[in-house]
Amino acid sequence: MVNIDKEQKNLIIDGLIRAQEWEALVAVLKKMPVIEVVEILYELEDDVLVEVLSLFSLEEQGYIVSDFDREQQKKLFNLLDRKSFGKIFTNMASDVRADFYQELDQEEQIQLLPFLDKKTREDVTHLSSYEPETAGGIMSTDFATLFENMTAQQAIEKVRKDAPSKKMIYYLYVVDVQMKLKGFTTLKDLILADPETLVSEFVYNDYIFAYVDEDRESVAAKIEKYDLVAIPVINQLNQLAGIVSHDEAIDVIRAEQTEDMEKFMGIVPVSEAVELNYVETSPSQHFRKRVVWAAALAILGLLTGIIIHRFESALESLVILAFYMPMVADTGGNTGSQAATIVIRAMALGQIKLRQWSKILFKEARISVLLGVVIGVITFGNVLVLSSVFNVPLPEHLSLSFVGVGIAIALSLQVISSTLIGASLPLIVKRLGGDPAVAASPAITTLVDATGLLIYFSVATLLFF
Amino acid sequence: MVNIDKEQKNLIIDGLIRAQEWEALVAVLKKMPVIEVVEILYELEDDVLVEVLSLFSLEEQGYIVSDFDREQQKKLFNLLDRKSFGKIFTNMASDVRADFYQELDQEEQIQLLPFLDKKTREDVTHLSSYEPETAGGIMSTDFATLFENMTAQQAIEKVRKDAPSKKMIYYLYVVDVQMKLKGFTTLKDLILADPETLVSEFVYNDYIFAYVDEDRESVAAKIEKYDLVAIPVINQLNQLAGIVSHDEAIDVIRAEQTEDMEKFMGIVPVSEAVELNYVETSPSQHFRKRVVWAAALAILGLLTGIIIHRFESALESLVILAFYMPMVADTGGNTGSQAATIVIRAMALGQIKLRQWSKILFKEARISVLLGVVIGVITFGNVLVLSSVFNVPLPEHLSLSFVGVGIAIALSLQVISSTLIGASLPLIVKRLGGDPAVAASPAITTLVDATGLLIYFSVATLLFF
Repeated sequence: MVNIDKEQKNLIIDGLIRAQEWEALVAVLKKMPVIEVVEILYELEDDVLVEVLSLFSLEEQGYIVSDFDREQQKKLFNLLDRKSFGKIFTNMASDVRADFYQELDQEEQIQLLPFLDKKTREDVTHLSSYEPETAGGIMSTDFATLFENMTAQQAIEKVRKDAPSKKMIYYLYVVDVQMKLKGFTTLKDLILADPETLVSEFVYNDYIFAYVDEDRESVAAKIEKYDLVAIPVINQLNQLAGIVSHDEAIDVIRAEQTEDMEKFMGIVPVSEAVELNYVETSPSQHFRKRVVWAAALAILGLLTGIIIHRFESALESLVILAFYMPMVADTGGNTGSQAATIVIRAMALGQIKLRQWSKILFKEARISVLLGVVIGVITFGNVLVLSSVFNVPLPEHLSLSFVGVGIAIALSLQVISSTLIGASLPLIVKRLGGDPAVAASPAITTLVDATGLLIYFSVATLLFF
Repeated sequence: MVNIDKEQKNLIIDGLIRAQEWEALVAVLKKMPVIEVVEILYELEDDVLVEVLSLFSLEEQGYIVSDFDREQQKKLFNLLDRKSFGKIFTNMASDVRADFYQELDQEEQIQLLPFLDKKTREDVTHLSSYEPETAGGIMSTDFATLFENMTAQQAIEKVRKDAPSKKMIYYLYVVDVQMKLKGFTTLKDLILADPETLVSEFVYNDYIFAYVDEDRESVAAKIEKYDLVAIPVINQLNQLAGIVSHDEAIDVIRAEQTEDMEKFMGIVPVSEAVELNYVETSPSQHFRKRVVWAAALAILGLLTGIIIHRFESALESLVILAFYMPMVADTGGNTGSQAATIVIRAMALGQIKLRQWSKILFKEARISVLLGVVIGVITFGNVLVLSSVFNVPLPEHLSLSFVGVGIAIALSLQVISSTLIGASLPLIVKRLGGDPAVAASPAITTLVDATGLLIYFSVATLLFF
C-alpha cells in the first residue's frame, strides 16, 4: 500500500467529525496536504471551524488560512476577535495576506493593525502599495538572503536560523548590507559546496530578475522560459523587494489564457486586474462584458444590409440566391475564425514571427484552396438535393446544375477569402502594436460576411444575368 | 549596477565571436543562464559550434544540449561522431534524451547504443517505452532517494554523494530497498532537522503522486493544485519510476490550452501526443485538421436550407425578410459562442460544477434578456435606416415600423435562445462524459442558425401574414 486509501481516509475523517473528536481529527489532518485540509475545513460549522483551527500550531494555521479562498478568509475574520485573527494573519504567506488586507475596508484595516507586530505591519502596507497586475502586486517577501563573504557553512547556519517554514529557501539571494541584490545561489549548490568555500565563489551574478513595476505576464514568461522555481523582484534602487514563485506563474498563465480566449470571443474584461469568478460575477457585470461587441456588430450589421439591398433586384428575380446566404455567412465565419485562432495561438507560443507574414499567408492560401474545393463540392451537392426536393422555380435560361456550379464557386471563393482575412487580421493588429487576440471572432465573422456577400452576388450577377 | 547591461554583454559576445576567441567566449558563456547560451550557440557555424561546445565540461554540455530544440539536437548528432555524441547524451536530462532517442530511426539508435553506459542505456530504453501523453512519457529519472532509517546527517551525506547537478533534490523521495515509495521529505526539512533525527520521523507519508500511465493533463493539474515543485510517478508495483517537475506542468498546461482553443474552433488535432509547430506542419496537415468540421457543417447547411425552403413563399412575398437573414445567423453565432466560451472556461478553471446547471442557465437567461433588448433596439434602428434609404417595397397592409418591430422581436428572441443553447451545449457534452470544449463554436453557429431561422420566420409568419 502506497499510502492510506483515499476512501478509507475519508471514512475515518467523516467518523471523527460525527463523533466530534476534534483532537483526533486534527492529528489526522496534520499528516495531510494543506489544500486537502482546507477542503475538509470548508465543510465544518462555523464554531467547529474555529475550534478545530485553534488545535493547529499558529504556523500551521497561517499555512491553512493562506490556502483559504477570499470568501472563507473573510468569514474567519468575522468569526474571530481581531487579536486572534491578527496572530493567524502574522503567520500567513506575505503575498496572500497583503491581498486580503487590500480587500478589507478602511475601518477593518484600522481594527486589525494594532494586533500586528511592526514587521508584519510594514510588510503588509508595503506590499499593498503595488498595482495588482505588476510583479510587486503578486510577489511575496518570504525569501531568504545570504552575504557574499559568508562561508558555505555559515550560510547554511543562517538559512537554518532564518527560515520559518513558509519561506522559499531553494534559491538563496545574495545581497549587500543595503539589500542590493548581487546574485543568487541554490540550496543545492550550498549543500554540495565545501563548507569552507565563500559564497562569493559560487554565487551566480548573471541572474534573471523582474522589476517591481513589471507586468505580471512578463514575469510569468521569464519563469517559464528559464524554468525557475522563483524569480527575484527588485526596485529602482536594485534592492531585493520580493520573489514571485513558479505556482504564481501558473496562475498568471491561466488568467492570461482566459483573457485571450474571452478577447477573441469579443468579451471585454471588466478590469484587467480583477479576475472575476463566473459565480461571483453578477448578471449585469456579465452583460457589460458581452454587450460591447454584440452591439457594435449589430450596428455593423448595417454593412451587410447595405450590400444585400444593392443586390435587391438580383435577389428578387432569383429567390434561390436567398437560400444560401446564411451558408455564405456561416462558412466564412467558421473558416475565418479557424485561421485566426491558429495564427493567434502560434504567435502566442512564439512559433511564428510578424516578419514571416508572407510565408504565413502563402501557407494559408494553399490550405484555403484545398478547403474551398471540398466546401464547393459539398455546396453543389446541397443545391442539387434541396432544389430538386423542393422544386425551386428557376428562370428559363438557367439550369439547376448551372446555378449549383455558380453558388459552389462563390462558396469556394468565400472560403479562400475568409481564411486569408482571418489569418491577416491578427497580423495586422500585431503590426499596429495591439494584442493579436483582439482580432476577435465576432469582428472576423462580420467582416467576412460583408466580403462574402459581395463575392456571392458578384459571381451570381456575372454568371446568371 | 545589478548585473552586466544586456547590450554591453551582447557587444562583448559579438566581439569575441568575430575575433574567434573561443576560450574567452566560453568563459563569458559559462556565467550565463543556459537558455541564453543556447540562443547564442544557435547563431554559430557548424564547425565553430562543435569547437565551442567542446570547451564546456561534459556536464555543462549535457545541460546545454538538453535545452536545444529537436532540430538542433539532430544537427549536432550528425555533426559529431557517435562516440562524442554518446558522451554528451549520457549527460543530458533523462526525459529530454529519451524523447530525442525516440525520434532517431532504428539504425541511428543501434549506432548510438554501444557508446552509452549500461545505466544510461537502460534508462533510455525504459523511458522510451511509455506513451508520450502519459506521466511516464514526460517524467525524468533525475531524482534523489533516501531511506527511512537514515539520520538527517546521513541523508545529507547521501544527497551530496548522489547528486550530480542535473538532479532535482528539493524533494527527496523516501523508498525501501525494492524502490517502493514510502513518502518524501524536502531538502529544507533535512537542513532544518536535527542531524541525529531519523528520516522516518519527518517523512511525509501522505503524499501526492501520479501513476506512470496517468494522463499528463491530470499530472499537471495535481502539480498546480498542490503547488508542487515536482510530483513522484509510481508504477503498478508502487515503485518510484520517475518525477515530473513544475516546468513540465507549464508546458502541458500550454499545450492543453491550445488543444482546447482549437477544439472549440472545430480544429481537430492531428494526434493527441504530437504537438505540431505551425511552421513544421505542412499545408495538407493543416487542411486535414480543419476540413472535418468545415465539411461536416457545410453538409449540415442542408438543415438551414430546408428551413428556408419551407418559408419560401413568405420570403418571396416579403423580400425584406431576406435582408436580415445574415444578421440572424451572425448575432446567434456570436452570442451563442460567447456564452459557450464563458461556461467552458469557468468549468475548466473549476469555478462551476455540472450540478449547478440550473443556476447557470438561469443566470444566462437573465444576461441574454438584457442583451436581447439592446440587440432588438439596434435592429429596429437598422431596419428603419436601411429601408428608408433604399426604399424597399412593402405590401399595403404593413407599415415599415411594424415590420421593424417584428424583425427586432425575432432578433431579440434569437439572442436569448442562442445564449441558452451556447451555455447548455458544453454542459450537455460534459454530462455525456465528453470534453466540454468539443461543444465547438462552428457546431453552435450551425445549430443556432437553424433555430434562429425558425424563430425568425415563425415570428414573421405570425405578425405579417
